[in-house]
Amino acid sequence: MLGNFTYCNPTKLHFGKDSLDALAGEMKNYGKNVMLVYGGGSIKKNGIYQKVVQILTECGKNIVEDGGVMPNPTVEKLYEGVEIARKNNVDFILAVGGGSVCDYSKAVSVSVYCDEDPWDKYFIRFEDVSCKIVPVGCVLTMVGTGSEMNGGSVITNHEQKLKIGHVFGDNVFPKFSILNPEFTYTLSKYQMTAGIYDIMSHILEQYFSGTDDNTSDYISEGLLRSLIHSARLAVKNPQDYEARSNIMWTATWALNTLVAQGKSTDWEVHMIGQAVGAYTDATHGMTLSAVSMPYYRHIMPYGVEKFARYAVNVWGVPAEGKTDMQLAEEGLAAMESWMNEIGLVMNITDLGVTEDMLDGIIKATFLNQGGYKVLTPAEVKEILKQSL
Amino acid sequence: MLGNFTYCNPTKLHFGKDSLDALAGEMKNYGKNVMLVYGGGSIKKNGIYQKVVQILTECGKNIVEDGGVMPNPTVEKLYEGVEIARKNNVDFILAVGGGSVCDYSKAVSVSVYCDEDPWDKYFIRFEDVSCKIVPVGCVLTMVGTGSEMNGGSVITNHEQKLKIGHVFGDNVFPKFSILNPEFTYTLSKYQMTAGIYDIMSHILEQYFSGTDDNTSDYISEGLLRSLIHSARLAVKNPQDYEARSNIMWTATWALNTLVAQGKSTDWEVHMIGQAVGAYTDATHGMTLSAVSMPYYRHIMPYGVEKFARYAVNVWGVPAEGKTDMQLAEEGLAAMESWMNEIGLVMNITDLGVTEDMLDGIIKATFLNQGGYKVLTPAEVKEILKQSL
Repeated sequence: MLGNFTYCNPTKLHFGKDSLDALAGEMKNYGKNVMLVYGGGSIKKNGIYQKVVQILTECGKNIVEDGGVMPNPTVEKLYEGVEIARKNNVDFILAVGGGSVCDYSKAVSVSVYCDEDPWDKYFIRFEDVSCKIVPVGCVLTMVGTGSEMNGGSVITNHEQKLKIGHVFGDNVFPKFSILNPEFTYTLSKYQMTAGIYDIMSHILEQYFSGTDDNTSDYISEGLLRSLIHSARLAVKNPQDYEARSNIMWTATWALNTLVAQGKSTDWEVHMIGQAVGAYTDATHGMTLSAVSMPYYRHIMPYGVEKFARYAVNVWGVPAEGKTDMQLAEEGLAAMESWMNEIGLVMNITDLGVTEDMLDGIIKATFLNQGGYKVLTPAEVKEILKQSL
Repeated sequence: MLGNFTYCNPTKLHFGKDSLDALAGEMKNYGKNVMLVYGGGSIKKNGIYQKVVQILTECGKNIVEDGGVMPNPTVEKLYEGVEIARKNNVDFILAVGGGSVCDYSKAVSVSVYCDEDPWDKYFIRFEDVSCKIVPVGCVLTMVGTGSEMNGGSVITNHEQKLKIGHVFGDNVFPKFSILNPEFTYTLSKYQMTAGIYDIMSHILEQYFSGTDDNTSDYISEGLLRSLIHSARLAVKNPQDYEARSNIMWTATWALNTLVAQGKSTDWEVHMIGQAVGAYTDATHGMTLSAVSMPYYRHIMPYGVEKFARYAVNVWGVPAEGKTDMQLAEEGLAAMESWMNEIGLVMNITDLGVTEDMLDGIIKATFLNQGGYKVLTPAEVKEILKQSL
């Protein structure tokens, strides 16, 4: 744990089958006008919407609806949401959905009282919040992004062909999040496995960086082992409560800042994946899985020691008599085999990428500094070609 | 992650060599009268006291001193501290020291406005706090208890021969804690290793319980591996900053409620160790190390699967061709060898326990329900005899 850092995560988590029971108690702390944010309407089919509306009504709240948040929330939708919030003098934003709904709600929360264009201020200039913030709470129905316990928000600007994430301070973190593993049961297997790989990628982006020895990497190894184990069970039986609950909890801790403390991080897979997402609108987790193996095989020689450690500590590869390079390769092979086993998308062709898009995707890919190799655009092209 | 639970940990952590720089900013949030709590005065020798006083003075605070907190803070000292806090109308309690100083400060914080005897209310009747709480902040100088990020407080009543811990709610958690690994350098090796085993024991008390599959146990395994590794480095070179910082961070996460979420816990080693502590006033961590091997060897057959997992995942024991019982025994042997390597006290005789004390210690030992075997007093006696 080198360097100086501050850790603070004030989000209260209510976890378990009965966790929605905590909503009424939480809502007592906030004002009357509640903006209810959700996505495509699946929460109406599985009954979560009705339960939430009933609780809010019993709490005497005025409900302002803002549905239709898309999987990659757009800047136009953000402008719309801000208008709704302003017009209705909203006191609290309740996000009921997955990471997109949570991300979007946080973006609205810091934009209602912002007197500039929030896209420019937060996602182009990466400025801090300087205005009043509308508090946010979450009822999570999809697992992966970790948005329920962090300050992150990813917004897509189709006109500019950009999908950009910004991490706000701890005053923007959800005040509370309600995590009921059963609320994730109605997701398709495709969405579930995409979420699982999103979690995996979050941990790996933080793990594969730096050469110092730190507790964060050991915690990451524990989270990875739990995830790998539970993913296998959940794919076999999506209604395995124990497996789904472990995956849900792992997702939260994979991206609530804990495992990044005291170390550098990479995030280049997300940069490439998000650029693919901006061109295809494909499910986020699958854009990450589709480019991961070519990326990790490309950078592995530059961080071979860490990849050898990964093989032994995460994948249980026996170390005896092997070089770091051999171990690293065996670890990546084990990872690839697990990815195939749980049914992840392993190439960007399946996501709709064609060769003529590559130059645009390369241009939209930010080149981060924290990985074992800082990529050149030519290397991004090579990785994308191997991902086709 | 079975069952329903709520997780919230609002303590802000400032970590690193320069973390004391954050004190002035934090103190701006609190009133003028600051009670400065510390132990035997070692902070005056290593200069931390002078630095803290300078910062508080520059912040314009009135400092009320309350030094002399003993390693196992007594109920008489608690009454004294409450009097000092009341007489000086204290707005904030700043604990500068180790777990005892933090524990004591939290006990004072919930007692200043309590109109009953706090020993009876909190430590005998285990009641919740119903009065105003004086906020607490910590500058940590000794590592192990995790008191810097939890609501725990252990107080000793010599007259009643009782050493009892109570866990207060998240409103009693320190508002902030300042963790500078270098502040722990002046500790003796004995105190350092005692702290290391206190951390180890905290994790094991939560790990060796329950048969469900949960992410918490995977996180525990990561923390344990980090601790075992860094302890070896720190014992060789106590000024190894990286090792000491990993140990400090692991201590915080070992007992800030995270790794207990969604599972049952044991805490029987602490029950026996605290009873030994009440009779000998020995250093807490050493009372735990001295009884651990006989305890774990005694309960192992009742939780052999978990002990086998422990051997493989924590100690790296190769599993092939071995029964769970063989693995479990090898894991405990590896643990015992590590304990000897880092110089822990391995029997209660060395702590001053004599055979005539055993009946009293047994009587003072709470029998918990969460372990793999609920002990009888006869079994406690057997464990204590094997610890002599």
